[in-house]
Amino acid sequence: MEDKLHEECGVIGIYSENSNDIAGHLYYGLYALQHRGQESAGIAINRNGQIDYHKDMGLVPEVFNDKIINKLTGNIGIGHVRYSTTGESYVENAQPLVVKYKKGDIALAHNGNLVNAEALKGMLEDSGVVFQTSIDTEVIANLLARHHKSDVVASIRKVMEVVKGSYALVMLSDNQLIGVRDPHGLRPLCIGKLSDGYVLASESCVLDTIGAEFYRDVEPGEIIIIDKNGMQSYKSDKWCKKNLCIFELIYFARPDSTIDGINMYLFRSRTGKILAKEAPVDADIVISVPDSGTPAAIGYAEESGIPYGIGLIKNKYIGRTFIQPNQEMREQGVKIKLNVLKQNIEGKRVIMVDDSIVRGTTSKRIVEMLKKAGAKEVHVRVSSPPVAYSCHFGIDTPYRNQLVGANNTVEEIRELIGADSLAYISLEGLSKAGGDQGFCKACFNGDYPMEVPLEGNNKKY
Amino acid sequence: MEDKLHEECGVIGIYSENSNDIAGHLYYGLYALQHRGQESAGIAINRNGQIDYHKDMGLVPEVFNDKIINKLTGNIGIGHVRYSTTGESYVENAQPLVVKYKKGDIALAHNGNLVNAEALKGMLEDSGVVFQTSIDTEVIANLLARHHKSDVVASIRKVMEVVKGSYALVMLSDNQLIGVRDPHGLRPLCIGKLSDGYVLASESCVLDTIGAEFYRDVEPGEIIIIDKNGMQSYKSDKWCKKNLCIFELIYFARPDSTIDGINMYLFRSRTGKILAKEAPVDADIVISVPDSGTPAAIGYAEESGIPYGIGLIKNKYIGRTFIQPNQEMREQGVKIKLNVLKQNIEGKRVIMVDDSIVRGTTSKRIVEMLKKAGAKEVHVRVSSPPVAYSCHFGIDTPYRNQLVGANNTVEEIRELIGADSLAYISLEGLSKAGGDQGFCKACFNGDYPMEVPLEGNNKKY
Amino acid sequence: MEDKLHEECGVIGIYSENSNDIAGHLYYGLYALQHRGQESAGIAINRNGQIDYHKDMGLVPEVFNDKIINKLTGNIGIGHVRYSTTGESYVENAQPLVVKYKKGDIALAHNGNLVNAEALKGMLEDSGVVFQTSIDTEVIANLLARHHKSDVVASIRKVMEVVKGSYALVMLSDNQLIGVRDPHGLRPLCIGKLSDGYVLASESCVLDTIGAEFYRDVEPGEIIIIDKNGMQSYKSDKWCKKNLCIFELIYFARPDSTIDGINMYLFRSRTGKILAKEAPVDADIVISVPDSGTPAAIGYAEESGIPYGIGLIKNKYIGRTFIQPNQEMREQGVKIKLNVLKQNIEGKRVIMVDDSIVRGTTSKRIVEMLKKAGAKEVHVRVSSPPVAYSCHFGIDTPYRNQLVGANNTVEEIRELIGADSLAYISLEGLSKAGGDQGFCKACFNGDYPMEVPLEGNNKKY
Amino acid sequence: MEDKLHEECGVIGIYSENSNDIAGHLYYGLYALQHRGQESAGIAINRNGQIDYHKDMGLVPEVFNDKIINKLTGNIGIGHVRYSTTGESYVENAQPLVVKYKKGDIALAHNGNLVNAEALKGMLEDSGVVFQTSIDTEVIANLLARHHKSDVVASIRKVMEVVKGSYALVMLSDNQLIGVRDPHGLRPLCIGKLSDGYVLASESCVLDTIGAEFYRDVEPGEIIIIDKNGMQSYKSDKWCKKNLCIFELIYFARPDSTIDGINMYLFRSRTGKILAKEAPVDADIVISVPDSGTPAAIGYAEESGIPYGIGLIKNKYIGRTFIQPNQEMREQGVKIKLNVLKQNIEGKRVIMVDDSIVRGTTSKRIVEMLKKAGAKEVHVRVSSPPVAYSCHFGIDTPYRNQLVGANNTVEEIRELIGADSLAYISLEGLSKAGGDQGFCKACFNGDYPMEVPLEGNNKKY
Repeated sequence: MEDKLHEECGVIGIYSENSNDIAGHLYYGLYALQHRGQESAGIAINRNGQIDYHKDMGLVPEVFNDKIINKLTGNIGIGHVRYSTTGESYVENAQPLVVKYKKGDIALAHNGNLVNAEALKGMLEDSGVVFQTSIDTEVIANLLARHHKSDVVASIRKVMEVVKGSYALVMLSDNQLIGVRDPHGLRPLCIGKLSDGYVLASESCVLDTIGAEFYRDVEPGEIIIIDKNGMQSYKSDKWCKKNLCIFELIYFARPDSTIDGINMYLFRSRTGKILAKEAPVDADIVISVPDSGTPAAIGYAEESGIPYGIGLIKNKYIGRTFIQPNQEMREQGVKIKLNVLKQNIEGKRVIMVDDSIVRGTTSKRIVEMLKKAGAKEVHVRVSSPPVAYSCHFGIDTPYRNQLVGANNTVEEIRELIGADSLAYISLEGLSKAGGDQGFCKACFNGDYPMEVPLEGNNKKY
Repeated sequence: MEDKLHEECGVIGIYSENSNDIAGHLYYGLYALQHRGQESAGIAINRNGQIDYHKDMGLVPEVFNDKIINKLTGNIGIGHVRYSTTGESYVENAQPLVVKYKKGDIALAHNGNLVNAEALKGMLEDSGVVFQTSIDTEVIANLLARHHKSDVVASIRKVMEVVKGSYALVMLSDNQLIGVRDPHGLRPLCIGKLSDGYVLASESCVLDTIGAEFYRDVEPGEIIIIDKNGMQSYKSDKWCKKNLCIFELIYFARPDSTIDGINMYLFRSRTGKILAKEAPVDADIVISVPDSGTPAAIGYAEESGIPYGIGLIKNKYIGRTFIQPNQEMREQGVKIKLNVLKQNIEGKRVIMVDDSIVRGTTSKRIVEMLKKAGAKEVHVRVSSPPVAYSCHFGIDTPYRNQLVGANNTVEEIRELIGADSLAYISLEGLSKAGGDQGFCKACFNGDYPMEVPLEGNNKKY
Repeated sequence: MEDKLHEECGVIGIYSENSNDIAGHLYYGLYALQHRGQESAGIAINRNGQIDYHKDMGLVPEVFNDKIINKLTGNIGIGHVRYSTTGESYVENAQPLVVKYKKGDIALAHNGNLVNAEALKGMLEDSGVVFQTSIDTEVIANLLARHHKSDVVASIRKVMEVVKGSYALVMLSDNQLIGVRDPHGLRPLCIGKLSDGYVLASESCVLDTIGAEFYRDVEPGEIIIIDKNGMQSYKSDKWCKKNLCIFELIYFARPDSTIDGINMYLFRSRTGKILAKEAPVDADIVISVPDSGTPAAIGYAEESGIPYGIGLIKNKYIGRTFIQPNQEMREQGVKIKLNVLKQNIEGKRVIMVDDSIVRGTTSKRIVEMLKKAGAKEVHVRVSSPPVAYSCHFGIDTPYRNQLVGANNTVEEIRELIGADSLAYISLEGLSKAGGDQGFCKACFNGDYPMEVPLEGNNKKY
Repeated sequence: MEDKLHEECGVIGIYSENSNDIAGHLYYGLYALQHRGQESAGIAINRNGQIDYHKDMGLVPEVFNDKIINKLTGNIGIGHVRYSTTGESYVENAQPLVVKYKKGDIALAHNGNLVNAEALKGMLEDSGVVFQTSIDTEVIANLLARHHKSDVVASIRKVMEVVKGSYALVMLSDNQLIGVRDPHGLRPLCIGKLSDGYVLASESCVLDTIGAEFYRDVEPGEIIIIDKNGMQSYKSDKWCKKNLCIFELIYFARPDSTIDGINMYLFRSRTGKILAKEAPVDADIVISVPDSGTPAAIGYAEESGIPYGIGLIKNKYIGRTFIQPNQEMREQGVKIKLNVLKQNIEGKRVIMVDDSIVRGTTSKRIVEMLKKAGAKEVHVRVSSPPVAYSCHFGIDTPYRNQLVGANNTVEEIRELIGADSLAYISLEGLSKAGGDQGFCKACFNGDYPMEVPLEGNNKKY
């Protein structure tokens, strides 16, 4: 529906030394991660070695209520939100996944995507394993069970040696909270401190929300074990090299989150400034496509000196379940999500800043709306390069033939969306905004940090 | 709440050569088995090799609606109803269990209880298997997966060699409907014929309900394979000896069902007649504790020549979810389920026939109600012997210390329930009513047909 | 669906001197009246002069739960169940109706039907009244409000002078519980005593259920006022003449209820005996169409000396919401509600006793089922005369052209339903079974106790 | 929870000459008005003279789904959203109100508050009217019914002569869509044109959303009748004087709406500029309290030359049903709705622009958060004067003793909220931003446009 790439999941874990009352914090924490997944939500919690859980389809406040939260008592817990994709959208696939194995119950919550999940699944089935879900997390759970005789760190390491792909993983055993970040650090995971415990979370905004102090990010390839002895770190010196997904910075993460030392708002604002330098144009007003384009638009305005203003109003009650307009309504111009603030646009030369263009359909529609409202010129500026390759690491990208950036020149795209001019930030400009750390930029340049399946084999969410 | 033993499950399977429209039949079939389980219901159906399913907590008409039934298309399907026990009552434990393994998806529905499930689970966990439910059926599924390289009959036989206990099992693979009855025939399973296919069901009342012809019962230890080549039977000549659970005849099965050649109504009527001979008493009216005591009461009346009448009226809207009366209400005599038909009882000597006494609490309450309504005498006659031992084969029995028959003489029980006289049918009389076939009568005499765990180890539903 | 006439409502009222905890009793009382209405249920309760209420579509246990019952506190309350008709089935029409008028809030619950509701509605609208429901009860509420300057008894009397039809009415004002029965006593209403208060209810089974003592029936045309001064009776000596609906005795009321001195079970049993004398036939077994035909069948068996047995098994989970079989299934003989107990029928001459025949469709189907199961002869005996006229007083009857008894001779009906013989009880026999009190027998003989609209004007529920 | 004044309702009406398919447009229109009311939503629609409707508690997408919308067919319809207040929050009070009266069904949807509703209710009750809701709309419906013999315009005029207060009213009769705006024009109502019909709506953003052209505002005291003869206007030349609620401009209406010729965004931006002139201060960044303070903040930034930036991030999934943090969590600083963008605030002198201060609690909390995040100075600027008087015309204001502006000097408020400086726009500045039209500014200066009840009598929502 929306012409955006989408994150697939968000995870959280809490360990409290003394309190059995952490479900409320998990709830608010998941709520702060709601932008990372709106399909399902779940919490699993350890009460004296037994794991209780509740998970269902829906937004966090839809899945949980006071009664459910009050029943979930215990001092170690994890939570998960999952993105609403079309296709394999069943409650069975909701997380955390809770399994019973030789050493007791464990619960797992996973953000990411395994590249070799199908192959591993085949191997496990050959030795007689049955599967009940279609999520990669069940593969990880079964691999862990293979090695239950080892200690927990050794068994996780063995799993890390065979799985390939992206994973920020939080796990709950009968007395430990465990966090793992893949050796490329593709997905974010950070550590926070509570007065009597620890928090693991996909984004630092969780820590602010629940009153925890930011401690540090989990490093690529690092295993974090939290129990009554405090926090232990187990790092690997082989195969680790940071390749943080740059789309986390461009769009996915909340603007108030800081990942691997980079604040999202400042990064986005910097991309706007760089874009203003790389692609200046004379105009009367800089507007953003709300809400995600706003930081870059403010940056563009600051750098260019052209005033920033509001040109598009977003209905703030946009939710998940929504009647779709029929064809006739669409032609009559039903504008459910966005409306032009005509009085701010009429007769003006407008610079419209967006964070990305995927299929181009929404951009086309907005340019039309602006022109109809009387904009003299519409100059589109995009704070990321053209998306031209599919992601294999947990981001929901269309097939290449649907990516407008994979199949058209910038001039062709400009014509297609009806803009008076169009410019994307350069890949170099983008990297510079992020301080030239190690990033995965494969969706722009096809340079994947590891071997990936051919497009044809890629399961499409 | 009710002072009855309870069946734990009912199963059904349908194979149709030509029709993809069998979900309605599965629905009505499960509905006819509703008395075997009210906690959850589920249907799994094979559509071109892919298994779709729907299961949830609730009665059959609560779990399914037109929309869901219409979406479940395919020509092979199975269904399951599960009993509402206290304790491990989660939707995860609902059946059919659908698993993905090397040879494709399979779905299983199981009525019964494995005696060695915990031991087998331990062995499987040792080799790295994780479990997601607490039902025996998942153990069976994993054992089957071990042997996926064998052909299907060979792999089922291998599973039958290691599992011990009771099982009437229907399974669905990508092109077959499979039925298995344990070597003791503890749980019933029968075969019916449709114009273009077959039905497997726990009870023959299913066949009447959906318009199928009764074909025959599955024999103890028999494997039935139904596919496009018709029906194949695979029998085992070792270890098979019929030990049909006699409580199926006494109470569980619907009166219009016929199991292993015995019609339930006629059996129950015969027990009433035998009871009238074994324990005659002079009286004005024979009444039953509705609904299950009625056939025996009619038999008793016929044999004794004392007229049968209605003495207790049951609220026919008794359902599953129900507000419980508080202590004060209970003392004030709130009578939700049963009311005495005073005009039929007042001033009379009453013979009250029930099918069984488990804890004795309900019998005590009813005798009190009858006396309060003016009964001159109340003579209780029970068409089964005192329940004195726990069941290990799928019937929900209390611990022995709660079984009034395990801890008291008949005279003590009479005093406890306040009856003027009390008599149970003899075990010999009961067997005779069933034609002296092989029955499991362990709940009466402790003579289990196989080794069972000590009571302490017995998991209590 | 079912080929039966249907009651439209049941009412209850409780006044307690000291307890604010009467909602539970109202709940159980409504539950005991569930057979009188399954569409909607509601409770209104007076808490210090303010009326709280809850009502919704559904069975009593579906509409209420612990939380709702616990919130409904107060010492005076009324309740209502409403029948599920096709047509005007909205939650707005659920009762009790709670209205605010000059003298405070009142709540009304009504069982019956006003013959002149439309005319009164027109008059009220002429003076500027608007209506929000389509139930007669709103007309009564508005008429009461007209006379709010009079005292309560005077204002009710004024309403009774203008409305025509049937009504058993319970009302709740800020400090009184009020009961009114129409001058013909068409609908039943009885009074019970609690240790510190009173109960009003459609049927006496309510009193047994909640532990109240039966006190007496409300008389035709009587107004009962219950408040802190105890119970007052206001009778009218004009226009009152008992015409109790005889179908309450035949079918509607619960067998354990006693109305105007007549116990339902004994009445029905007597009709069976009279029928056996009026229409004897040689046969092997007397069976009933469960559950309502059973008392008459037992009576028939007793009188004739032919043994009573069970020939039809009813699925006891029959509920309200239910998937309907499609045409194909119906032809294949899906038997959802009833199954023949073949072993009891095969080769026998069967007398099948039912309480009434309305359209004849169900009788036809059952006779077919019995014949198919091997019955040598099927003799149908009906414990009420042919239904030949529509009811205007609150019973849901089809139009005359659908009444098999209005359009056919008994011989024609016999042929239509395929029975070997058919006999109805005579109208005289029926009256005699009820002790020749004043009854409304208009559905049999068209002799309405007051002027009624022509059929064409009759609104059909 | 939120420290804001709240609008109580939004209304919409659509008349289409040829289409029966207007429910979708009503749905999207209500969705665009969702900010005016989140408690309940409803649509009533005219199908050949019969009014169908659906209304329930909840947000528009929660109350309606495809199935419900598809069933609501007809060519004339109205809709309503209602604000979630504590207190009288029942589904009975949801609108549209549908009543049946002498001349047929009518449906009404009302935004506003009658000052003399209680007095009128008393008069109506004296003549025998009963009420079923506690909404003013039912009073209006009954008054209309009094005059049903007059033609529609005459009867509305008679109602307008007796009711006092604010009302934007849309009504649906069997063949007309009717709109009425009170003689003071306190609540907004505008007219739009569709290709084959008309739209009436509280705000012009509805017209953009559903593709209608803005035609004009309904004038104070004007009656609009739309039917197959087109649109007729009936104006009154007595007692009409525009007193548009100025809080519609400050906060309630959506920024993209234009009311009585004033665009909300431009008005708010102008107040920011005027405020910058009236109360300048040296600082590093201008931030807004999202989302409502943003236009004024941008205006302030533009006028002052100090850069605008984002300082506070709002969780965009904030919904209606939400677990409340307990005291302990609140002390630990759970930040559910707002988080500081620390990187943009740290070490800076911050100007924080908000549109209004009601109780002052939220302002205090945000100033604290900013200081804790490292703000060197926090200067609060408010784009409306101190709220010091309760509203009687449909805005949910606290009692005067809770209004921080009614009981404190500006310096006292500054100290209370912990700001380094605090300034409000002057009442003159505010009026100037709105072009000095006729406004109701009573919440600031107590100058009510008509007699109002004493505070003690004012019913508090």
